[in-house]
Amino acid sequence: MSTVTILTDAELSPEAAKVFADIRATRKTEFVNNFWRSIAHDPVLLKRTWESVKQVMAPGALDALTKELLYVAVSIANNCEYCIRSHTAAARAKGMTDQQLMELVAVVGMASETNRMATGLQVPVDSVFLARG
Amino acid sequence: MSTVTILTDAELSPEAAKVFADIRATRKTEFVNNFWRSIAHDPVLLKRTWESVKQVMAPGALDALTKELLYVAVSIANNCEYCIRSHTAAARAKGMTDQQLMELVAVVGMASETNRMATGLQVPVDSVFLARG
Amino acid sequence: MSTVTILTDAELSPEAAKVFADIRATRKTEFVNNFWRSIAHDPVLLKRTWESVKQVMAPGALDALTKELLYVAVSIANNCEYCIRSHTAAARAKGMTDQQLMELVAVVGMASETNRMATGLQVPVDSVFLARG
Amino acid sequence: MSTVTILTDAELSPEAAKVFADIRATRKTEFVNNFWRSIAHDPVLLKRTWESVKQVMAPGALDALTKELLYVAVSIANNCEYCIRSHTAAARAKGMTDQQLMELVAVVGMASETNRMATGLQVPVDSVFLARG
Amino acid sequence: MSTVTILTDAELSPEAAKVFADIRATRKTEFVNNFWRSIAHDPVLLKRTWESVKQVMAPGALDALTKELLYVAVSIANNCEYCIRSHTAAARAKGMTDQQLMELVAVVGMASETNRMATGLQVPVDSVFLARG
Amino acid sequence: MSTVTILTDAELSPEAAKVFADIRATRKTEFVNNFWRSIAHDPVLLKRTWESVKQVMAPGALDALTKELLYVAVSIANNCEYCIRSHTAAARAKGMTDQQLMELVAVVGMASETNRMATGLQVPVDSVFLARG
Repeated sequence: MSTVTILTDAELSPEAAKVFADIRATRKTEFVNNFWRSIAHDPVLLKRTWESVKQVMAPGALDALTKELLYVAVSIANNCEYCIRSHTAAARAKGMTDQQLMELVAVVGMASETNRMATGLQVPVDSVFLARG
Repeated sequence: MSTVTILTDAELSPEAAKVFADIRATRKTEFVNNFWRSIAHDPVLLKRTWESVKQVMAPGALDALTKELLYVAVSIANNCEYCIRSHTAAARAKGMTDQQLMELVAVVGMASETNRMATGLQVPVDSVFLARG
Repeated sequence: MSTVTILTDAELSPEAAKVFADIRATRKTEFVNNFWRSIAHDPVLLKRTWESVKQVMAPGALDALTKELLYVAVSIANNCEYCIRSHTAAARAKGMTDQQLMELVAVVGMASETNRMATGLQVPVDSVFLARG
Repeated sequence: MSTVTILTDAELSPEAAKVFADIRATRKTEFVNNFWRSIAHDPVLLKRTWESVKQVMAPGALDALTKELLYVAVSIANNCEYCIRSHTAAARAKGMTDQQLMELVAVVGMASETNRMATGLQVPVDSVFLARG
Repeated sequence: MSTVTILTDAELSPEAAKVFADIRATRKTEFVNNFWRSIAHDPVLLKRTWESVKQVMAPGALDALTKELLYVAVSIANNCEYCIRSHTAAARAKGMTDQQLMELVAVVGMASETNRMATGLQVPVDSVFLARG
Repeated sequence: MSTVTILTDAELSPEAAKVFADIRATRKTEFVNNFWRSIAHDPVLLKRTWESVKQVMAPGALDALTKELLYVAVSIANNCEYCIRSHTAAARAKGMTDQQLMELVAVVGMASETNRMATGLQVPVDSVFLARG
């Protein structure tokens, strides 16, 4: 149970309904998941978030699957169960295999281990890493 | 300044020196960065960490650049300056462009935003996301 | 199920019972929630925590609702389900509306997004921000 | 030093320059801080982020100072030095006093303490907290 | 439900089965918990993780119980329910009492509180703390 | 530079001065570090925090060094540079050796790695771990 109600289609404001229509058209499915139904209480927040996600996750210099893998990795580091599950599903839909998921989890784990080790010993950044691309 | 000394080559134990030799051979450079020089105080930790990193970061079902991008993303979420800088440099060395870095940062930001929103409202996971691959 | 037992009133030590009496008197309700029943295993911890919360959350230069909103925001960033739910309920009891909750969640999300972006690019602090109040 | 260059006005693309003009007009100052100069490498990201911040931080059901205090609190919990310093400065500019800052820090500290205690003992959520507003 | 299947003994690859045999021999029990059954999808990851855990958690300059307490404390700070529960159980099996658990939780809470306060005010490190051991 | 001034002894309020006297008497040194000088702006916060730290860190069911090691571990996981440095110094003063510090860092790293792996795959808690001490 969320801390606000999960809105049904019938409960949407006209502004929220318009965003839902775009979600459905873009994703080519009638299904709209609980995340959008929760934030639909605030149509301005709903619209901005949806348009931002559409823009950020569109293929660009990085392809759509790579972006989805990054989303899953960050959601793990930030500990968001909802996001881990929804974006793992999205990554699978975009072609992620079980072996790729296991490797992603291995990298997230390894990075977290060395992150804490470097922080734990307060290792100073080598000057060579301060040079810009 | 780290909370332990940064060991010079002359201060390494024989076991640590062997690991440094492998780091140099694998990376084809004489340069060994401060992270390894800090954990070299514990040669068992040094050896295990180096071998784990080599194994995890080798190309597999995910290519080497994708793994490096994931490493950077997790290091951002975990707030490790040392790791952000060293792995951003590593990613550039593997071909990451400025535009790819900007898109990576955009995805990390977007994921962090929606992670907190889903957590903030305690949105329940849709049953469709609970089905396994 | 918690990793220690949830103590009933009958299981409290005399020192813990005294704290529970103060919780009830202060809040003007018989209900004492599971958080206090869990830490009541250590009456010194219980007493110190309760007195600290009372002191910190009392209206001062910031009013009681603003403090509660800050509590919710931090609990989201720290990912504590128990605290998100209990303090969202407390904030509602102090007058928080659905629209205020949505705006709070929007700010927490936005801050988390830009936090990661600034960290991700290691943006240097402008000197003007280093000047003190 | 950031991991991308800090763009000067002369280095901006026309799209980025337009956003900078709006930042200056909105804030009524010529000064544009490093955060915007860093993300200006990606004008689409710059424009979306600026417009989102403007929308989210505008007074609504929560006033502008309360939103700024929430921003600072989340930035502390997320450990973003840049954001803590820039938004503490912004909060002072909107009227935050030293005493309010100290109380904000006290609430952030207290919330973080009880967050970890509730998580540490895995305290189950009381059913009364599951009821929605 | 995890995002990959929990493998039964019958579903293990020969390499994974060998690791499970060592887990059973080392722990002197037939029981193998879900963590290992989840990562067994990737036998290389399984083997490396198990051997790392065995090495890191073996008594050394720190005894086994102290290491287990540290593991629980970090799992709380990182918000991993699975790890809090499994390592709290492991710590109890190694002799941790209820009172020790309460004190551990108190230290984790206190550290988290002062961590946020020091970060919140951006307190500069005293030069005396920069001197190395 | 902190976001509030670091108070000198001459700038303390009488209430804050009393707390400083107790810090000096308890620690048997004239030195008072910047953390206390920063929060001394709010004497009530200063007094409560100092008394809480004294109580929590006193030897009990866990000895003083173990508590200090836990403090360092949590400060690493929470990414507080000030606290990592000050409590690493405190742990050394209480007898922590370089080898113990390396093992602590190894445990913090390992725990962080498996924390993320368990979270990443959303491994369900084994029922045996749900039984209470």
